[in-house]
Amino acid sequence: MEKIEVVFLESSLELMNNKLLDIGESRKKIRKDDGKRGRPDIVHVSLLNLMEKPFVLNGSVEVFIHIYDDRVFKLSNDIRLPKNYERFKGLMRQLLLYEKVPPGSKDPLIWKVSDSLDEYLNGRRIILLSEDGISSNIDDVIRLSLSTGYPIGIGAFSHGGFSKRVSANVYEAFSLYNGIKLKAWDVSCLLSSKLFEIFSPRIG
Amino acid sequence: MEKIEVVFLESSLELMNNKLLDIGESRKKIRKDDGKRGRPDIVHVSLLNLMEKPFVLNGSVEVFIHIYDDRVFKLSNDIRLPKNYERFKGLMRQLLLYEKVPPGSKDPLIWKVSDSLDEYLNGRRIILLSEDGISSNIDDVIRLSLSTGYPIGIGAFSHGGFSKRVSANVYEAFSLYNGIKLKAWDVSCLLSSKLFEIFSPRIG
Repeated sequence: MEKIEVVFLESSLELMNNKLLDIGESRKKIRKDDGKRGRPDIVHVSLLNLMEKPFVLNGSVEVFIHIYDDRVFKLSNDIRLPKNYERFKGLMRQLLLYEKVPPGSKDPLIWKVSDSLDEYLNGRRIILLSEDGISSNIDDVIRLSLSTGYPIGIGAFSHGGFSKRVSANVYEAFSLYNGIKLKAWDVSCLLSSKLFEIFSPRIG
Repeated sequence: MEKIEVVFLESSLELMNNKLLDIGESRKKIRKDDGKRGRPDIVHVSLLNLMEKPFVLNGSVEVFIHIYDDRVFKLSNDIRLPKNYERFKGLMRQLLLYEKVPPGSKDPLIWKVSDSLDEYLNGRRIILLSEDGISSNIDDVIRLSLSTGYPIGIGAFSHGGFSKRVSANVYEAFSLYNGIKLKAWDVSCLLSSKLFEIFSPRIG
């Protein structure tokens, strides 16, 4: 069976004064209209729902993180994510600083694959999950990704629309459950549950 | 349609020196053989996968937390959970201390419903999701819960078996995907995704 790529888009990960910005803790002033800043919890929970599952461990699904400044990172298929939030933030800080973790490793857990979304896509387009998209369902989205080789994209920020960087690269956007508002980790969970069904023995 | 109850069992929530124990942060000595201590992240991520969903908001699914010391708490169906882990821990500390949050509220977000699992069950038994159970699937588990009125139980600790308190109350234990090892939040996610399907319009 073909591979599926999943990419978390415009993930709210950034450094400020050499620290990972977390608006849940610091009370730093962030422009109020920007829902893409300082929410590392979003990508954390979304990844917990997707990584360490049989379809990732066996290489059927590959997972990427596109961040606020446009860089794209790939997670190793056999990564064990830090479950503790502070430890996850420590790892992300290191990743953003050194572009791979652990910094010196030849066999890293996460590493930079490109400096921009365009470079990562390399002519491909994104199958976007977005509440503004055409009403669809997760089976059809997965099927489309398998037939085109295009990655499935999930926004990993708290609110606001996608930037032009993303929207210019969208093949088609699909909403689930008639466009109900879903959090990034909800979409990740719905996708993960369907991947369990598809890539596992029939029972379950 | 009938209601479904979901109960997180033996959740790793406890106070130590008036603080919520978190072995991911404190390096306090906990007996090594006890996988049920100090992992508030497990119930946090599990709840994020279940709360604030249409089937909870409309009252079709009710969610309970049974903790390490045997007390059982109920979450309000319209609770908005803290997404930030530190804030979630602050809320749980308050809950364990005052048995409802906010402490003075007449309309609390979470409150104690009983001092023991037995008292909460009140003669009912638990439909347990456990990797040691009979091979089944999540649809059949939900169907059984609907037909019996028995709650669906998910262990919310990191490792080790269920205590006698739980196992003495089990109606039947079921495993998913042929008994693959799943984390509490994975089970919560699989359950949540199926509840989306069951309680939502056909599309999706």
